Amino acid sequence: MIFISFEGGEGSGKTTQIQLLIDYLTARDLPVAAMRDPGGTPIAEKIRTVLKDKKNNALTARAEALLYFASRSQMVETLVRPHLDEGTIVICDRFTDSTTVYQGHANGLNLDELEFIGNFATGGLIPNLTFLLEIEPEAGLARKAAQGKLDRMEAKGLEFHRRVAAGYAHLAKSNPGRIITIDAGLPVNEIHEIVVAHVEEVLDTQTN
Amino acid sequence: MIFISFEGGEGSGKTTQIQLLIDYLTARDLPVAAMRDPGGTPIAEKIRTVLKDKKNNALTARAEALLYFASRSQMVETLVRPHLDEGTIVICDRFTDSTTVYQGHANGLNLDELEFIGNFATGGLIPNLTFLLEIEPEAGLARKAAQGKLDRMEAKGLEFHRRVAAGYAHLAKSNPGRIITIDAGLPVNEIHEIVVAHVEEVLDTQTN
Repeated sequence: MIFISFEGGEGSGKTTQIQLLIDYLTARDLPVAAMRDPGGTPIAEKIRTVLKDKKNNALTARAEALLYFASRSQMVETLVRPHLDEGTIVICDRFTDSTTVYQGHANGLNLDELEFIGNFATGGLIPNLTFLLEIEPEAGLARKAAQGKLDRMEAKGLEFHRRVAAGYAHLAKSNPGRIITIDAGLPVNEIHEIVVAHVEEVLDTQTN
Repeated sequence: MIFISFEGGEGSGKTTQIQLLIDYLTARDLPVAAMRDPGGTPIAEKIRTVLKDKKNNALTARAEALLYFASRSQMVETLVRPHLDEGTIVICDRFTDSTTVYQGHANGLNLDELEFIGNFATGGLIPNLTFLLEIEPEAGLARKAAQGKLDRMEAKGLEFHRRVAAGYAHLAKSNPGRIITIDAGLPVNEIHEIVVAHVEEVLDTQTN
């Protein structure tokens, strides 16, 4: 099983790196499937719409967390698990770490409770490898704003995104084997090379 | 605080009894607010749409439970709690018991896990009084079918609804103080009189 997630604050360049990794693995003739969380399946995308709509600013922190878990649960059971079971490499744009950081560290929900519900939602599925693209909150938000309108999560302000950055740093420290922290300010190709080196290592471990 | 829920299988007559109770309390000049779960607030109604749409038959048991909890969490924090805090009597068409019975007893999810997530979602809110309108699954489904199309939950078949009935019976046995079981086959006015007698008892306890 090879399950890779990408994490990071807004504007950290996850999308670009995921596409480069897909291209790399495809050129290597390896079966790969990529998806975004929340999303990935028709039902999960409907839940994503509720989560991302700025009109839903009355959404409470708890309901928000439960919607992320619902969407993730649907995606894991109907998309991620079947792919992993047939030997496909799965790459996910965000996963449980995002809920830990955004709804836990940044929004103040209890981390143990989130962990419990996360296990219920995913059946305890954890990525083998998580790339954390670390970026200064100021720089990330500026990058996103330059790309167009910010969505409901992105519009939460600098203080919130500082707590996100601190939460990610804490998580990376607690999971040194799984989470690879990369400076998102490095050139795109340099980041890609670091990603590939770690993925190749996992591929080696799994095939030998 | 007076928080009353109505539970029961499909076609058990909850809607009729809730309306009669609202009318009774309103005539008694008591402040009352009624809502349905899932639903009650704009965001919760959006989640309800996902849950009720028969096109979403790929919805997994876990994602379904999490969506019910998300909707309920939003409703409790933004609607139920504020009403209760200002002394309004809240009447809810279904509440946490429904998830215990439909997703737990009938759909096989772990009851302890559901209880944990239920507490997270509602902050531990439990009705003072729950009326369980007990009906034979065959009779209830026939009543609903006669009223028009069945929704996604109602279309699940007789075997499922038998497990629902058994789950409710089990729950009532474990919560004899809170859950009042009433034979849904009794005449409407007779049921209403039983409901009123119990509500008056709670009103007495709370005002004396």
